[in-house]
Amino acid sequence: MKIQAEWMRGGTSKCWVFETDHLETTATNLDELLPRMFGSPDSRQIDGVGGATSTTSKAVILHRSSDPEVDVEFTFAQVGIEEATVDWGSNCGNCSAVVGLYAIEKGWVLPSGDATLITTRNTNTGQIIVQRVPTPGGALPIVPDAHMPGVVFPGYKVGLGFRDPAGMTTGSLLPSGAANDLLDADGTQWTVSMVDAGAPVVIVRAEDLGLDTARYETWVDGVELQLDTLEKIRRQAAVLMGLAATPAEAVRAIPKVAIVGAPAADPECDVNVMMLSMGKPHPALAITGSIALTLAAQTPGTVLGDITGAMPRATLRLRTPAGVIETWSEERDGSLLVGVDRTARTIASSTIHLPEAIGSAAEASLASASY
Amino acid sequence: MKIQAEWMRGGTSKCWVFETDHLETTATNLDELLPRMFGSPDSRQIDGVGGATSTTSKAVILHRSSDPEVDVEFTFAQVGIEEATVDWGSNCGNCSAVVGLYAIEKGWVLPSGDATLITTRNTNTGQIIVQRVPTPGGALPIVPDAHMPGVVFPGYKVGLGFRDPAGMTTGSLLPSGAANDLLDADGTQWTVSMVDAGAPVVIVRAEDLGLDTARYETWVDGVELQLDTLEKIRRQAAVLMGLAATPAEAVRAIPKVAIVGAPAADPECDVNVMMLSMGKPHPALAITGSIALTLAAQTPGTVLGDITGAMPRATLRLRTPAGVIETWSEERDGSLLVGVDRTARTIASSTIHLPEAIGSAAEASLASASY
Repeated sequence: MKIQAEWMRGGTSKCWVFETDHLETTATNLDELLPRMFGSPDSRQIDGVGGATSTTSKAVILHRSSDPEVDVEFTFAQVGIEEATVDWGSNCGNCSAVVGLYAIEKGWVLPSGDATLITTRNTNTGQIIVQRVPTPGGALPIVPDAHMPGVVFPGYKVGLGFRDPAGMTTGSLLPSGAANDLLDADGTQWTVSMVDAGAPVVIVRAEDLGLDTARYETWVDGVELQLDTLEKIRRQAAVLMGLAATPAEAVRAIPKVAIVGAPAADPECDVNVMMLSMGKPHPALAITGSIALTLAAQTPGTVLGDITGAMPRATLRLRTPAGVIETWSEERDGSLLVGVDRTARTIASSTIHLPEAIGSAAEASLASASY
Repeated sequence: MKIQAEWMRGGTSKCWVFETDHLETTATNLDELLPRMFGSPDSRQIDGVGGATSTTSKAVILHRSSDPEVDVEFTFAQVGIEEATVDWGSNCGNCSAVVGLYAIEKGWVLPSGDATLITTRNTNTGQIIVQRVPTPGGALPIVPDAHMPGVVFPGYKVGLGFRDPAGMTTGSLLPSGAANDLLDADGTQWTVSMVDAGAPVVIVRAEDLGLDTARYETWVDGVELQLDTLEKIRRQAAVLMGLAATPAEAVRAIPKVAIVGAPAADPECDVNVMMLSMGKPHPALAITGSIALTLAAQTPGTVLGDITGAMPRATLRLRTPAGVIETWSEERDGSLLVGVDRTARTIASSTIHLPEAIGSAAEASLASASY
């Protein structure tokens, strides 16, 4: 069995990109096929194309859309490493950034003007993401030269505009009905805002956690001491946002938690942010979460709007441990696009070899010892 | 710039395999080209084909030999991760295992009989490695089904026979002229054997370290307490083997250190072994080091021969932390072949994309922040 794929960097992730019909010709269940191609189950993924980390064990499956208003439909797959599983439950913002570039490189969308727009739909979430790739003189430059924090080498700049992202999961930008709410956790009252845009996020005030809002460098240590409390807040928020019936039933991935504080007089950023990922401080910011923060910053009464002024704004600059990340908002064709810029690049065009019949993988893992 | 490569698993490593003339057409210095292709310098190698670990940041460069007695010449490259460097100083036994399979898959060597022999020369060391790939009925099976410890999935079995490996580095199997020597370190006398075959190795007796030879599970802890002493022994051995002028000048990689002890009455193994790698206990055994131990076990007077009987033997079973590893020895055409069996498989056939001119990489790393 041989399967064509492009290996692409999208933002700070590496993604294997498959065309839907190439996978369909294998007539194999993707929940079995993808882990085997990636070399899972194996903490080192030594016999497959996976990179043995969460940011390098990702796949994007895409095809041209039959909807005339959409160019490309794409599905994101987080491929398990130590388990032969696939998580289809959410989208990855970084991997999203390869889709528009793929469409141009394959001739699915012809470059036009100095920037080419590609309308994509993520099937995991239903979210439309309008991608903008600079094509000066109506062509993709031969040598990409755009830089972004966290990536040493240049790529093609890709703007990711989430179209009308409010309420994609819950039906409403403010699922509790209020711009802020009081929650009780560990004997304290917490003022939070619950916002659904890009992803559901519960936003907590840094000062409520006793953090020195202006001394951002002290936040990680302060947050790590209060992870249990933040998890209780997150689970209560899950119920109030309609994502879970009880706190105990809240799933791990949503809502996300963001902690925000006013920066000291700082010309470089508008707000200090620390987001949690899988219960720990995130080194930067999930792209989907940054969309929620961008809308919250423009919404009167939210704990973030109180810091930023709660006015419509073209850009929002968020300080994260990895540096300042800028998001943007714009009206286009009667819709609101909220987004970030990434870079992307095709690393390799590949034919993946898979000689044995799928189904033998499970036997293999039983038959062989591992380090 | 587009460069063809096969991505192959050899043993417990992943290797990118390039044909010499494909790299030569790039007219680019390999010390710059390989790190850029792999995504270095970057601890995550996120913009390249490297896997961000030492066992997945490896390349093999090969071509058909003009020497009628050799089928394939190959060079091993350990590609730096956090530094844009290449180490050409040694061979990798695991990556060696892809060379014979590559030659068969590309038609450089036609399968003949139930096992096909491919004579390869490693240019880093000058070592001839005769590779044996089972080809039942004169063909490579479509579905590989050989297993090995440390790899979950099957591959093609590859026997790696190091031809006449004695003295490849120093000119002599016993470079000090004796089968055993006394060294002083930390106020104690140590009985060691210094052996050069596959790689230079100094062999230390487990009982000299106070280890319970029969209780192998206690070795790691005992060895870790004496790493400083072992490093002093290693550096003295480097001088006595002619590898360094003074102990201070001994390089990190050679000689390797192996600790050996007689197993308790154990039908599964002939000797308990712990090898050090970069100053720490190795989870298994470097293939090159296992060649030296195999010859030492057959040499009267060595500290290993005292355990195994110092007689010619077809196989030697070495207990390592990862399990028992078997080496073999055989006479063939007047030469001695000493070796191990691995498995190998082609994971993907790729065209690597490298759009920017090489030379911009260094500037890139200065221009961009990293996580």
